[in-house]
Amino acid sequence: MTLKINEARFLSYMAKSSSIGATENNGLNRLTLTEVDKEMRDLYIELLKEAKLEVRIDDFGNIYGRREGKIKNAPVIAFGSHLDTQPCGGRFDGILGVIAGLEVMQTLNDHEIITDYPLELINFTNEEGARFNPPMLGSGGITGNLTKDFIYDVKDSDHVRFEDALTAIGYKGQEANRLKEAKSFVELHIEQGPILDNENIDIGIVQGIQGLTRVNVKVKGVTNHAGGARMKDRKDALLAAAYMMIAANKMTEEIEGLRVTVGKIDNFPNVINVIPGLVEFVIDMRHDRDEVRHQAVQLIEERLYELATEHNVSCEVHRGWEYNMVPFDPSVIQKIREAVNDLNYSAMDLYSGPGHDAKYMSTYTPTAMIFVKSVDGVSHNENEWTEDEDLIKGANVLLNTVLGLAQK
Amino acid sequence: MTLKINEARFLSYMAKSSSIGATENNGLNRLTLTEVDKEMRDLYIELLKEAKLEVRIDDFGNIYGRREGKIKNAPVIAFGSHLDTQPCGGRFDGILGVIAGLEVMQTLNDHEIITDYPLELINFTNEEGARFNPPMLGSGGITGNLTKDFIYDVKDSDHVRFEDALTAIGYKGQEANRLKEAKSFVELHIEQGPILDNENIDIGIVQGIQGLTRVNVKVKGVTNHAGGARMKDRKDALLAAAYMMIAANKMTEEIEGLRVTVGKIDNFPNVINVIPGLVEFVIDMRHDRDEVRHQAVQLIEERLYELATEHNVSCEVHRGWEYNMVPFDPSVIQKIREAVNDLNYSAMDLYSGPGHDAKYMSTYTPTAMIFVKSVDGVSHNENEWTEDEDLIKGANVLLNTVLGLAQK
Repeated sequence: MTLKINEARFLSYMAKSSSIGATENNGLNRLTLTEVDKEMRDLYIELLKEAKLEVRIDDFGNIYGRREGKIKNAPVIAFGSHLDTQPCGGRFDGILGVIAGLEVMQTLNDHEIITDYPLELINFTNEEGARFNPPMLGSGGITGNLTKDFIYDVKDSDHVRFEDALTAIGYKGQEANRLKEAKSFVELHIEQGPILDNENIDIGIVQGIQGLTRVNVKVKGVTNHAGGARMKDRKDALLAAAYMMIAANKMTEEIEGLRVTVGKIDNFPNVINVIPGLVEFVIDMRHDRDEVRHQAVQLIEERLYELATEHNVSCEVHRGWEYNMVPFDPSVIQKIREAVNDLNYSAMDLYSGPGHDAKYMSTYTPTAMIFVKSVDGVSHNENEWTEDEDLIKGANVLLNTVLGLAQK
Repeated sequence: MTLKINEARFLSYMAKSSSIGATENNGLNRLTLTEVDKEMRDLYIELLKEAKLEVRIDDFGNIYGRREGKIKNAPVIAFGSHLDTQPCGGRFDGILGVIAGLEVMQTLNDHEIITDYPLELINFTNEEGARFNPPMLGSGGITGNLTKDFIYDVKDSDHVRFEDALTAIGYKGQEANRLKEAKSFVELHIEQGPILDNENIDIGIVQGIQGLTRVNVKVKGVTNHAGGARMKDRKDALLAAAYMMIAANKMTEEIEGLRVTVGKIDNFPNVINVIPGLVEFVIDMRHDRDEVRHQAVQLIEERLYELATEHNVSCEVHRGWEYNMVPFDPSVIQKIREAVNDLNYSAMDLYSGPGHDAKYMSTYTPTAMIFVKSVDGVSHNENEWTEDEDLIKGANVLLNTVLGLAQK
């Protein structure tokens, strides 16, 4: 039996969320633990109660909506995402996974279905990390990846502590309310990348989160007047950096699946008629396989030093933020695949570039993710968009995946 | 007869200048028409009078020190430069040409020499353009390249008008005091480039000021998440810009004497994990021959559009500031060459990249320039440096050039 959600109700939930913290350009500004976040949380709890869910709030402000199953004291099938946004964020990032989860619960109510395992829908606190950095504090806390002391002491740019902000909006709950035993976790999310949109494929079955290494590069040349210095006398840091950026990019032609990006570059003194004396840039390197990524990082580091010598400058290279590939669970992936097949949607396997609450959850319980299209891959931006039909397809896949997982 | 200046007196003059507006790091902050500039001007006028020169101030605040010659009512041999500096400038840029001029006058006094033609030493107002932009207002005014109305209405960043600032420090003189008929103009200056220092050559005999074209380039790609977007789907504006910068630089290998610099680049949004959607940069192109420069500009413009297509982005190219090569006068150049030979200094012909008061003066009277070494070519910076022996060599060349020019 392939169930489908109630589209109109689901879209009305999405519309309610889109009205709280709305920006002029169809986006949302709903930073975590602000008054606007509280307004969303209050509404959300009303909706959870309307859906006859048992509501709990834990000591990180994570909100749970529980629906009992047939088996007593059984581990739960957990699903969810986050309702907080970037300061100029979109309406879908995170929100889709929570609101679709709510609709899943209501659809089960409509059909009077009691699953074997109990279900818990989770709204995680501060996934974005836009107000309190680092991101994913709520999921990091309940999975033991971050300690309570650490999380409570994280400060925003106005030096407000996380714990105090949580207390201020009345969402500091009990440690006893945290997620206990989970059988699995699944997160529906917009892709935040253009692959599904470019390929016109409905659903991304996420195999894991790519490993990442950031390589910080500092190129040192010698500042000089653009008119005065002959070409052969120059030590042009920006010219050398251009060769380095291209070399890093060219590695993606040699190494299948490698993604290399230079997104940030700072040039000094950045004056039209002055030969640059210092350039700093960061190479972001990602791959599905850690050993391939490590090899690529080593190769580019060697190449950077060679290029510095070739172009008459010096360079300093050091590795910044780094994490290994996070593989998702084959059995959960399999349930997603079955749901997609039952629904007759097109699908492809892919890896997530960005991190998600699922990244921490995967260290705690078998986990996987479902992606739907983002138009042009735009995200963290008011132009973020996903069409209604894709939101609905995502919610239907979540519904049937949860049904599959919750069956004994 | 090869005269030489009085080294100790000359260096004591330089030291006096170095004490007015001195910065902590051996530089000078002596912005034009400030109280510090007034202090320098007051001292300078005392020194001109000590050297028995007839002092005049014109309506742009340019200060003249005149020494009569044998021929009555003859056109003057003019020389000089500027005493104003950048906000974090050095002790030599401009100042050398004025102070060495003063020492030239005193040396002639020492030897009781009366030249055939009268001599006029000029300190030009606002060469730097650091407070009142554009630069070279004083020389621009007396040569008719800029109108009095335009100059008087130029405002600094606090909206103070040039005329009001001139009046405030008591240096608004008479229009009748402007330079009248000149037979020639010669300017001694530090190179502000590394050529003489790198080649260990004493004197640069400046053939002219290179022509310049600024090419403004805007590269438009599409912003996306570094983790989400596959390499083949990307429209990376910074990567395309890297290819463009290298292509512009490579043109200097094909076109002898061409100088190409990208000094300024702005990358948007400039976030580590976001593929750049927009890059703006400026290509500064200089050559001694205008037709070669024009050809190079046209070639690079075509190449930029090709590269945009090759790298899946779009680009807009438009020409910004542009001026033609300013050739100096062969007869004045010849006098400099004779002076250098008589003094037995090493010398080379070169072109100036930066503009100077001599650029405007060359439109008014036969003009040339003398360069001395700048250590590492550093200028517009407190680290600007020229050794005493090079300052002295420059002053000796100025002395003998002036003597040669002033002889009937």
